[in-house]
Amino acid sequence: MSGSVSPLAPKSFADMPAVRGVRMATAEAGIKYKNRTDVLLMVFDEPAAVAGVFTRSRCPSAPVDLCRQHLSGGAARAVVVNSGNANAFTGKKGKAATELTAKSAAEAVGCEPTEVFLASTGVIGEPLDATKFAGVLGEMTERAKGDFWLDAAKAIMTTDTYPKVATRSAKIGAVTVTINGIAKGAGMIAPDMATMLSFVVTDAAISPAALQILLSEGTGPSFNSVTVDSDTSTSDTLMLFATGAAAKDGQAPVSDAASPALSDFRAALNDLLKDLALQVVRDGEGARKMVAVTVEGAESDAAAKRIGLSIANSPLVKTAVAGEDANWGRVVMAVGKSGEMADRDRLAIWFGDVRVAVDGERDPSYSEDAASAVMKEEDITIRVEIGLGAGTATVYTCDLTKEYVEINGDYRS
Amino acid sequence: MSGSVSPLAPKSFADMPAVRGVRMATAEAGIKYKNRTDVLLMVFDEPAAVAGVFTRSRCPSAPVDLCRQHLSGGAARAVVVNSGNANAFTGKKGKAATELTAKSAAEAVGCEPTEVFLASTGVIGEPLDATKFAGVLGEMTERAKGDFWLDAAKAIMTTDTYPKVATRSAKIGAVTVTINGIAKGAGMIAPDMATMLSFVVTDAAISPAALQILLSEGTGPSFNSVTVDSDTSTSDTLMLFATGAAAKDGQAPVSDAASPALSDFRAALNDLLKDLALQVVRDGEGARKMVAVTVEGAESDAAAKRIGLSIANSPLVKTAVAGEDANWGRVVMAVGKSGEMADRDRLAIWFGDVRVAVDGERDPSYSEDAASAVMKEEDITIRVEIGLGAGTATVYTCDLTKEYVEINGDYRS
Repeated sequence: MSGSVSPLAPKSFADMPAVRGVRMATAEAGIKYKNRTDVLLMVFDEPAAVAGVFTRSRCPSAPVDLCRQHLSGGAARAVVVNSGNANAFTGKKGKAATELTAKSAAEAVGCEPTEVFLASTGVIGEPLDATKFAGVLGEMTERAKGDFWLDAAKAIMTTDTYPKVATRSAKIGAVTVTINGIAKGAGMIAPDMATMLSFVVTDAAISPAALQILLSEGTGPSFNSVTVDSDTSTSDTLMLFATGAAAKDGQAPVSDAASPALSDFRAALNDLLKDLALQVVRDGEGARKMVAVTVEGAESDAAAKRIGLSIANSPLVKTAVAGEDANWGRVVMAVGKSGEMADRDRLAIWFGDVRVAVDGERDPSYSEDAASAVMKEEDITIRVEIGLGAGTATVYTCDLTKEYVEINGDYRS
Repeated sequence: MSGSVSPLAPKSFADMPAVRGVRMATAEAGIKYKNRTDVLLMVFDEPAAVAGVFTRSRCPSAPVDLCRQHLSGGAARAVVVNSGNANAFTGKKGKAATELTAKSAAEAVGCEPTEVFLASTGVIGEPLDATKFAGVLGEMTERAKGDFWLDAAKAIMTTDTYPKVATRSAKIGAVTVTINGIAKGAGMIAPDMATMLSFVVTDAAISPAALQILLSEGTGPSFNSVTVDSDTSTSDTLMLFATGAAAKDGQAPVSDAASPALSDFRAALNDLLKDLALQVVRDGEGARKMVAVTVEGAESDAAAKRIGLSIANSPLVKTAVAGEDANWGRVVMAVGKSGEMADRDRLAIWFGDVRVAVDGERDPSYSEDAASAVMKEEDITIRVEIGLGAGTATVYTCDLTKEYVEINGDYRS
């Protein structure tokens, strides 16, 4: 963990209500860190519907493998998350560790191992001693409680400088449901999907299949639109659980993602996912500035996103932002290298509200002072008009600072 | 220009012989820098065969547009290169500037404007005042001389900390020919092609078509296999000129790139291109370590190269190298994110001669001390065995340091 909190951190944390049907506890299992909680247990007293999206890495972690397998059952009774060790690239030992952890959790909670989901974050390649969980999961199940979200978010932090929480409410029919989420992540953050671990729980009654569609659709403009360093983790995990407790209030269970009954829920979920994803960017390792890159007029939305990511991942753009330099030439460079169609002589570029380039050259009325003033802000918008079509996308990133190099040049020690 | 020379700089510069048929001069045109040469003129007294490869950016500079057009003529009489201003994203003014420069050079040398080639490097988006060249090209033509390669290399530097020169000789039949090259580049360096400007001249008699094939083939394992920061310039230019002066020694002109007569020449050219490309990496902005990434056992050579570039461009791998941390987990991450086929459980990874991972987990006999000793070297080799096929590639990069951030956070000021 970094010593000081990101200057881009939220000024206060959301007040997180309990969500009926889920209880949590944390413990110090001593995986890597001393004197801090490093394991989180989420318990669903009744089976919750579950959906998940995971890293597209070709070398996923052992817990990701396990979650993908267990997801087909559609039901969750427990989630065990640890920080300090990613249990990635740990071979047969890693698989054995996940199996032992699932078995331990199943015994503690009283369910099948296939109803247990796991996530691990931390160093890659170190064997994870899963026996450390076995000793604590039983008593954690006993004391798990609903009003525990901020503590849960803290337990899964690694290089994060602040815990990430968000909550929303939505109507399904006449019934109000709650959606709570936590996330962690600060480096090794890039689509697809943007790293991190994130766990979202609602008391709504929604089928696993519908839940999966909602989650997959919601990931595109949120977690898959943020990048800190273009590096994709082996462990990226985003899971959504629906406890169904709202059925007791009369919420009619929904099994069709396209049902009009879910429109408010979908909007609230998407908003929460974006909130969490942006909290991850704002905690980007060494970040001092948050950058929203909007691309308009590309050949397609997909093309716009690729151009946006080319800009957002460019070390030269990100160091220019760090240096508060309105260096739009580097934006042109990044558009050019994206591989997407672009016509140099139609490009226009804005920093904030200041148009710095138009028709393929510097804006005749460009004011260096006005552009520089934009760059001094904490939140910066870069907008690029490609001038070829109707494709648009917005992606989010942070600046590249000496502190990023420092944090990552000294991570394992 | 950075204040101090890269610690990875060559200990001495190659002794560059003259190449018959080309003369050079430099001048202080005052484009951006004060009290240093910033324009280079190369004069071919007889038309030289010419070949070129250029940036694949969708937003190329005006000089790149001009070179592509003039290349179809196959003949060169003059090259004008300036540093300090890239004449990129300068719209109609940029095109007018290239036309004026070509016209001025043609008048000075006594040739057609279509026999003039241009390259510009420096800030993007600033209009280039080409009238500054018009005043100096005439007298430069007068005093241009053959024994001038190191001075030529110095004139085209921007953030480079040392001039880049290389020379080779080769036999074509019984005749010995010379190949000389210069290059510049230190940042905004990535395929395709790796930035920079580079100009290579030989006195061999080779047709433009054959020359183009030799150059295109030679670029893959050299300039298109190096990356400093994954950012592709709008101005990348690599040109190869053959003055044909060796015909006077009895060298039979060659017009077929596949001719056995060119085998020694091809090898020498490829070696020179690689030499220059590696000099660019060794001058990577802020670089303190040079890294060769070799990928073996991939599905194809192309797949191996993409995996290699994924590793070489990863900020997390590059900061680990800067921190002398044998963090092979990040190499696994970069293999996984490349999108190429990989089987986690077949991967093996070496730092130098130390195998740190095998069969998808940490090498049982892995020694942290031995791996750490490797990381303290200036030149580091990372080797990855994918275990799926016969595809191999080697790419070259440097570490990512705080100095890179410093240099690029303050470039325009």
